[in-house]
Amino acid sequence: MARQPLAGEPRARVLVAGASGFAGALAARLVWRHPRLELAAATSRGEAGARLDRLYPRHRVPVELRELDLDAAGSLDAALVAYPHGAAAGPVAELRRRGLVVVDISADLRLHDLAAYERTYGEHGAPELLAEAVYGLPEIHRERIAAAKLVANPGCYPTAALLALAPLAAAGLVDDVVISAASGVSGAGRGGGDRLHFVSVAENFSPYAVHGHRHAPEIEQELAELGSRASATFVPHLLPLDQGLLASCYARLRDELTEEELRGLYAERYGDEPFVEVVDEPPGVRDVRDTNACRVNVALDRAARRALVFAAIDNLWKGAAGQAIQNLNLMLGLPEGEGLS
Amino acid sequence: MARQPLAGEPRARVLVAGASGFAGALAARLVWRHPRLELAAATSRGEAGARLDRLYPRHRVPVELRELDLDAAGSLDAALVAYPHGAAAGPVAELRRRGLVVVDISADLRLHDLAAYERTYGEHGAPELLAEAVYGLPEIHRERIAAAKLVANPGCYPTAALLALAPLAAAGLVDDVVISAASGVSGAGRGGGDRLHFVSVAENFSPYAVHGHRHAPEIEQELAELGSRASATFVPHLLPLDQGLLASCYARLRDELTEEELRGLYAERYGDEPFVEVVDEPPGVRDVRDTNACRVNVALDRAARRALVFAAIDNLWKGAAGQAIQNLNLMLGLPEGEGLS
Amino acid sequence: MARQPLAGEPRARVLVAGASGFAGALAARLVWRHPRLELAAATSRGEAGARLDRLYPRHRVPVELRELDLDAAGSLDAALVAYPHGAAAGPVAELRRRGLVVVDISADLRLHDLAAYERTYGEHGAPELLAEAVYGLPEIHRERIAAAKLVANPGCYPTAALLALAPLAAAGLVDDVVISAASGVSGAGRGGGDRLHFVSVAENFSPYAVHGHRHAPEIEQELAELGSRASATFVPHLLPLDQGLLASCYARLRDELTEEELRGLYAERYGDEPFVEVVDEPPGVRDVRDTNACRVNVALDRAARRALVFAAIDNLWKGAAGQAIQNLNLMLGLPEGEGLS
Amino acid sequence: MARQPLAGEPRARVLVAGASGFAGALAARLVWRHPRLELAAATSRGEAGARLDRLYPRHRVPVELRELDLDAAGSLDAALVAYPHGAAAGPVAELRRRGLVVVDISADLRLHDLAAYERTYGEHGAPELLAEAVYGLPEIHRERIAAAKLVANPGCYPTAALLALAPLAAAGLVDDVVISAASGVSGAGRGGGDRLHFVSVAENFSPYAVHGHRHAPEIEQELAELGSRASATFVPHLLPLDQGLLASCYARLRDELTEEELRGLYAERYGDEPFVEVVDEPPGVRDVRDTNACRVNVALDRAARRALVFAAIDNLWKGAAGQAIQNLNLMLGLPEGEGLS
Repeated sequence: MARQPLAGEPRARVLVAGASGFAGALAARLVWRHPRLELAAATSRGEAGARLDRLYPRHRVPVELRELDLDAAGSLDAALVAYPHGAAAGPVAELRRRGLVVVDISADLRLHDLAAYERTYGEHGAPELLAEAVYGLPEIHRERIAAAKLVANPGCYPTAALLALAPLAAAGLVDDVVISAASGVSGAGRGGGDRLHFVSVAENFSPYAVHGHRHAPEIEQELAELGSRASATFVPHLLPLDQGLLASCYARLRDELTEEELRGLYAERYGDEPFVEVVDEPPGVRDVRDTNACRVNVALDRAARRALVFAAIDNLWKGAAGQAIQNLNLMLGLPEGEGLS
Repeated sequence: MARQPLAGEPRARVLVAGASGFAGALAARLVWRHPRLELAAATSRGEAGARLDRLYPRHRVPVELRELDLDAAGSLDAALVAYPHGAAAGPVAELRRRGLVVVDISADLRLHDLAAYERTYGEHGAPELLAEAVYGLPEIHRERIAAAKLVANPGCYPTAALLALAPLAAAGLVDDVVISAASGVSGAGRGGGDRLHFVSVAENFSPYAVHGHRHAPEIEQELAELGSRASATFVPHLLPLDQGLLASCYARLRDELTEEELRGLYAERYGDEPFVEVVDEPPGVRDVRDTNACRVNVALDRAARRALVFAAIDNLWKGAAGQAIQNLNLMLGLPEGEGLS
Repeated sequence: MARQPLAGEPRARVLVAGASGFAGALAARLVWRHPRLELAAATSRGEAGARLDRLYPRHRVPVELRELDLDAAGSLDAALVAYPHGAAAGPVAELRRRGLVVVDISADLRLHDLAAYERTYGEHGAPELLAEAVYGLPEIHRERIAAAKLVANPGCYPTAALLALAPLAAAGLVDDVVISAASGVSGAGRGGGDRLHFVSVAENFSPYAVHGHRHAPEIEQELAELGSRASATFVPHLLPLDQGLLASCYARLRDELTEEELRGLYAERYGDEPFVEVVDEPPGVRDVRDTNACRVNVALDRAARRALVFAAIDNLWKGAAGQAIQNLNLMLGLPEGEGLS
Repeated sequence: MARQPLAGEPRARVLVAGASGFAGALAARLVWRHPRLELAAATSRGEAGARLDRLYPRHRVPVELRELDLDAAGSLDAALVAYPHGAAAGPVAELRRRGLVVVDISADLRLHDLAAYERTYGEHGAPELLAEAVYGLPEIHRERIAAAKLVANPGCYPTAALLALAPLAAAGLVDDVVISAASGVSGAGRGGGDRLHFVSVAENFSPYAVHGHRHAPEIEQELAELGSRASATFVPHLLPLDQGLLASCYARLRDELTEEELRGLYAERYGDEPFVEVVDEPPGVRDVRDTNACRVNVALDRAARRALVFAAIDNLWKGAAGQAIQNLNLMLGLPEGEGLS
């Protein structure tokens, strides 16, 4: 259980699998510039041979993408896997078998309940991993993450919604909640065809997946673990911007609280958190862009007895690759924020 | 009470007061190109002397803005007043005194209850008008608008929220509702300073007025008139786009309905409405840009017993100037959609 | 050669082929709402069976796309063909054979010189049409268009650049010209993959095709016809917006002119043009969005003896579908601007 | 002339004057996080008393703005002055008198020729400084900057244009040049009123200052110093994005070169430059956002005997505050890129 602090060893050797997607490419960049990690390999299923600094000039990672070679990976220390859901579980199992510490950025290992997974995503590729995987939201599961060899990195919407609601849920205050959230386009990934063409998104704003987004079971699982078995309605919207996600949460409270009491709950829970910033005004997604921060603001609608909680993150950072590094730092015994400033 | 059908007279002579703002300028353009109206004068308090086609090249209205001359206005038939709230009531009273039919696009006459007005906006400039003014949402008050000489044009958020909720509210089904809405920047007007500078808005998305937006009492007044005394939570957000507004409404239902029953309610209420389009998929604001349409979609979250209703409008059209023309058409006995296609 | 004025016949029956692309879909919408045309069929090679109002909700054309049926098309009056270059010439030949008047929105028939075409685009599918096709820029070739049965609709960049330069070129004044142009994303079409993903385009601006864009030979051909055999450098850039194109033209002059003389040349040439607006200030692309107008402004850099000419169009309207309707109106003897306001 | 290497002293104490504007606020942030500099004071003429992290949440500089106190400033080591042109010269003179090393980000000291300044900007507040001030483009004047106590930080357009053209100008190759440039909105500053309102800029693109932008004399001065007395035409355009600037330069060459020779010139001149990246493809402004890099690409239009050179910078970094830090690093004997990665 004691972390190997890597003393003596200068850098842990890290594989980023799926580095041609938005989250994987950022993960590769964060590893590349991390003072205690080495980008040992960056792989892509579809674009092996391409250079990352051609695909993503702004990341400036002068590395050629390769095919994933599991046997060669056996000599490495850790892996970040940024595959589409359904495709990750198999390679993650192989990497674990070879002894690597793994953060899975996909959705494959986030749900503890196999049935819930299969209802949401279809057949599971490695159900035996579900018991081992720790849900990688450090602000809720820090200790368990630090002791884990396998972490399931949360979805972007759950990250923001759970950070918005955790202080209330842990206090057993949430009766019912509406989560009306909005994400920039990078959250939807590089595929997507016409729907993500510039012309479809620019000057537009619309809800989607209104009959049940895949992230809903994940939010419910964690709210329940925190102690809130509230009914939850979750609807995402697509924003005409690249990076940024806002969860606007409307939580009906079981008790009457003042706004000061509400604010006190948040200050207390997040006072020492390195990446949660409790602020006095509603945050904008621009405030947290290109950072691993989550900005949270809470207000009270007294007449409706509702807490209004707004949490802003960068969907690619705290909502994906940044949080993966935060988790990996914890797993490797490194300072939690190393390489993230 | 019988409308003067303007037979014989080719065009009603219309004044647009406050034509240098976004809503007023569009109102002037719509009057300018309207086959049965004549733009007799366009006025501005701060920019008299400027030409509208310099201020708004895309509107192509080759007209010089003037100071408002109430006496000269006495010879006209109708006025659209697009002043800031607080500044409209006085001139509206003067125009009414001179016999003009008036649509007030400001907020001054929307609330029937003077106390509610004063809590929200401060002292009222012409409280005697409140009794006369009809709330100008044709889909709810068409008959009364057609018989009115003075109409208070609804706010942009209330227009979308009320069109989203009217079928449910009128059926007494709404127990409680969260309205999480978002508007493009033109909804905030030409002023606004730093907050509306391109650099503040681009790539950003944030809630505002979370402790009570001025449009909330207006929404509550009309929901109550429709028959729903539900508690309502309303939070607006600022979108990084010019024109467009989406109201995402989460209404807890008193009864268990199926989604088909829900859809039936909407089809029935809006089947004959010229400007409400009930659609099968959640609308995007781009779908209604530069039109007077409101697109509405309803879905059911059965587990939470909530109707999810999404209404998209162009905040400058159906949310302001377009609806003002629709109201004026009704008041003048013209076809309701004249000049709006 | 005499136009059949369609007297008696209420509407010409028009086929739009390739109506699932941006230009074709707008062409279908413009035909749909045109008072003298009937949208007899809208076809798509890849999306037959889909409804246009699903693909393009904002166009509100409640029509199902079909496969192109050339034999059925034989009974129609006219066709607008919006296929990709290379794919149009064959169907255009077939439609002409069946007697339809055709406007080809593709690039296939714009170049009179087969060799120039083949250097630029590859093998030609129906070289026999080149002699018949008239280059469809009404401001240069109005008479010939009105007499034609087959018109090659100009490219978006050539439309703006030629309207910017025609008064100078026709006066033999242009010694040398740099055309630095920029277009919104819709100009690049629905395909394009990653390059046109929202995330690639937003917050970005870059030149492309710097070693020779396909529109360059078209510009040179027409400048030469106007009387200017100047060397021309043309570089396009991609703008982070949907519709809009600006050609910034820097033309070295053979003679010393005053700015007044320059402005006089433009006023004279374009004074009676319905769709060219000569303005005093540099135009923005927003000024002409969703219109068939081209706004032109000219200034003099006396020290460098250069005319600076800026022409703004909507690349989908005057740069594609709008101009196609303008051409079709001329060909059918209808008022030139019918259906375009 | 020998730099005081600050050995022993941990950090130079730096004043940022005018820290409420876009460039000044970024300068304050860069000083704040710089390992060898201390943000001793951040001042504002109009917003003293406000906190920087309220005005610019994303910069996260928890510092209160103060009034400029010249006497207190006497104890500091250096100042970055980000005042509007015309307002800087006086305070800069005072700060120099008190012994501070100064980088003036305003335009006041960029032109060596007082008459040229006065034609462009009006009366000069401290003409005696012109002789002392060194033009702060390190890639041209590195040695002189390192020896200077007073540096005039270049304008954003000149920075990009000069980096694009320096290899050609220094080789005496430029006969004539057109610089067609485009900048994001932050380049125009926080003021600007309606013109910079989101609604004016979004979805728009237009040239401005076509009869002579203030940056033109600066470009000409430096091209002449490099050895090119070419005629130059410079036109800026306003882009619908926040940060980013592209200079598209079309330079007619005195000699016939191959593209390889051209590329060789750039590789040679910039091979060792830490902040100039010569690339094979035309750069996008997004590639350099939030960095101090300038990306340059050169191509040949052989037919017109023109070099096409594209240089992309972030107008607030390499075009203003980033370059100011680069200059200050040189002046203080620090590593040139310290605090800029």
